[in-house]
Amino acid sequence: MEQSLSAQLDKYADLLVHKGCALQPGQELVLQAPVERADFARKVVRAAYAAGAGHVTVIWADDEVMRMEYQNVPLDYFQHTQPWKKAQLDGLAEAGAAFLFLEGRDPQALLGIDPAKPAAAARARNTECLSFRNGMDFGRNVWCIAGAPVAKWAQQVFPGLPADEAVLKLWDAILKVSRADGADPEAEWDRHNATFESNKRLLNGYAFDHLRYKSSNGTDFTLGMNPGHIWEGGAGHTQEGRAFFPNIPTEEVFTSPDRMRADGIVHSALPLVHAGQVVRDFWLRFEAGAVVEFDAAEGREVLEHILKTDENAMRLGECALISKDTPIRQSGILFYDTLYDENASCHLALGTGFPECLAGGLDMNKDELIAHGLNQSSTHVDFMIGSDDLSVTGVTASGEEVPVFVDGRWAWGK
Amino acid sequence: MEQSLSAQLDKYADLLVHKGCALQPGQELVLQAPVERADFARKVVRAAYAAGAGHVTVIWADDEVMRMEYQNVPLDYFQHTQPWKKAQLDGLAEAGAAFLFLEGRDPQALLGIDPAKPAAAARARNTECLSFRNGMDFGRNVWCIAGAPVAKWAQQVFPGLPADEAVLKLWDAILKVSRADGADPEAEWDRHNATFESNKRLLNGYAFDHLRYKSSNGTDFTLGMNPGHIWEGGAGHTQEGRAFFPNIPTEEVFTSPDRMRADGIVHSALPLVHAGQVVRDFWLRFEAGAVVEFDAAEGREVLEHILKTDENAMRLGECALISKDTPIRQSGILFYDTLYDENASCHLALGTGFPECLAGGLDMNKDELIAHGLNQSSTHVDFMIGSDDLSVTGVTASGEEVPVFVDGRWAWGK
Repeated sequence: MEQSLSAQLDKYADLLVHKGCALQPGQELVLQAPVERADFARKVVRAAYAAGAGHVTVIWADDEVMRMEYQNVPLDYFQHTQPWKKAQLDGLAEAGAAFLFLEGRDPQALLGIDPAKPAAAARARNTECLSFRNGMDFGRNVWCIAGAPVAKWAQQVFPGLPADEAVLKLWDAILKVSRADGADPEAEWDRHNATFESNKRLLNGYAFDHLRYKSSNGTDFTLGMNPGHIWEGGAGHTQEGRAFFPNIPTEEVFTSPDRMRADGIVHSALPLVHAGQVVRDFWLRFEAGAVVEFDAAEGREVLEHILKTDENAMRLGECALISKDTPIRQSGILFYDTLYDENASCHLALGTGFPECLAGGLDMNKDELIAHGLNQSSTHVDFMIGSDDLSVTGVTASGEEVPVFVDGRWAWGK
Repeated sequence: MEQSLSAQLDKYADLLVHKGCALQPGQELVLQAPVERADFARKVVRAAYAAGAGHVTVIWADDEVMRMEYQNVPLDYFQHTQPWKKAQLDGLAEAGAAFLFLEGRDPQALLGIDPAKPAAAARARNTECLSFRNGMDFGRNVWCIAGAPVAKWAQQVFPGLPADEAVLKLWDAILKVSRADGADPEAEWDRHNATFESNKRLLNGYAFDHLRYKSSNGTDFTLGMNPGHIWEGGAGHTQEGRAFFPNIPTEEVFTSPDRMRADGIVHSALPLVHAGQVVRDFWLRFEAGAVVEFDAAEGREVLEHILKTDENAMRLGECALISKDTPIRQSGILFYDTLYDENASCHLALGTGFPECLAGGLDMNKDELIAHGLNQSSTHVDFMIGSDDLSVTGVTASGEEVPVFVDGRWAWGK
């Protein structure tokens, strides 16, 4: 590894430990990392101990081993979490660990795999490892997802390059879009979060009744907001109020819209990557919250498959606002990874919404959430609609019109 | 990886799975492997599934992460095995898994580390993970230790070479000395084991009262055998009688001698590597089983430390016979790893003996073993005495003298 890159990665490791995980002296850090990126994982371990970690548990992952597992082991095996795995995740969560997930995945690792197997494994983990799952969902455990390149990912992002070069180029991109390429990434994230706080405060203050989207690409669309909707984004907070960053990078300010009030047409601004497949140049027409017509220049069948996932997959669960001036959008790179790509532009998501985006939502069951206008589905697929000249106008219950986005940027600057 | 090396490593992977672990269809394989050698670990996983493995669990290891753990985490932590780790090892052992330990270690990984920490971790694992420990000790679980190079190890074996070259050279050496460099390593191991069986049958048939060692290097030494001593070596067997190889490579035919009858002087034939330190050109003088005098051209204090471990560390627990024609000895390489180095020549071991090397020994407690002449100690340190002209003569209770080794080779050929 080149010396200057190595020094910058030390700063990135510190950022993940100090800001992403807000690691406290004596606390356990659980680090999930690809074996191929052991060099960087060791930097994170070093940073964690330097920050006073009580202990670091590294959970190593390998796409090829996982792929062989899914290829060779019958579905049954995946329908329950192994007892030792449950003991590991729940035990560490109960001990108050922070969880840092270093994502570096071959975008094609699951190509050709029976999707029922990874789906069963995820469902089992979510329903059986409850201390782990709830610890993260209810602010008892800090968690952070951040990226680190592996060769097959880097070569998909930068096709035609030798593996080593592609990895270096992806490191460069990751540092840049994660706002970790400067002299003081931690200060950069303090400033970044102050902007989040300001944007959320303004949006939540307006309590819009609906948003109106317009763009020269044909987008002409109205989206209803639920009473008591909450805009989220930037830092998360533990129950004790400690700030941490669930995603590094993150650029989105988001809420969950009224599942019954979406009308008009939206055109895609960027390709949609779903389970290794790409949908390009597509549009969706909504009536009373539901998709009633759609088409795509490429990958229409993928879109159709998403919309048919369940009866609520054709309704919206999220709308997110992201300026076109963000480093991810400026990079012009398609990362083939939601952590980055969903932060590239204003987006909507088909499928499930977020209970935390509705006042009282965390205490409601599924039926109550739906009754309050918050969509519930087994899927959640983001798609990018943030064209360069997108305008978003907020309309209050009293009919006041407030420019929110003009020409793809926040109307109030930043 | 070069094409021909890659193809040979596929054969090595098959050897470990088929012969080392004798993996059965549907059986779980637990593979412990260094993250740095993921390329080869994946070959083993592939070989295991091809052999019908029900599932493969990979337990990844990393010397640098381990070293940081020992440097930063207090002793307390290591005095108990983590509950999830116990659940993992015991659970997999109880499910009948085969355990394959791929050893690739930086010989200096623990240099400067408080030895109480790794010692506590090992003790905790041995005393707390009883299904795992006993499963392997009592033939319920198959286990196999084999080698795979990592850069820091390879560069210690071949100093001055760049990491990549050193690793390739160590791969070459490992394949050669593991009898896995030919067209059909598995057939090679069948032949190899037939030789073990023959040597054990002959030695056990003679039931010697004592052995007499002589060499031009000054060795002149008599070693008593216990009544009911058993020579072991080569394949191990599960309770159901399935043969497997606990060590690949292995060249030694060994037993545990009478702890009270060792007399005379033995001179080292090769350096002794202990906890990263080297002892060279040393000798030990025994009287009535105990070391009464010793010296070394280099590392005398290491030897002294070993002898003082406990009150039985100055008595012998093992004598092993290995021809000078074996590939390890022929390679002339000091591997800085017991798996290889103990197979380089005839050796003795200070410290604890093996209950399985005494008729009925597996059913005896520590005091009974000692009463039957089998040494018991918390240490076991092999040292090499197999000089090129070593002769070993077996003497039966009736005084018959049988040449066992002549000029460093089995007297009966092979």
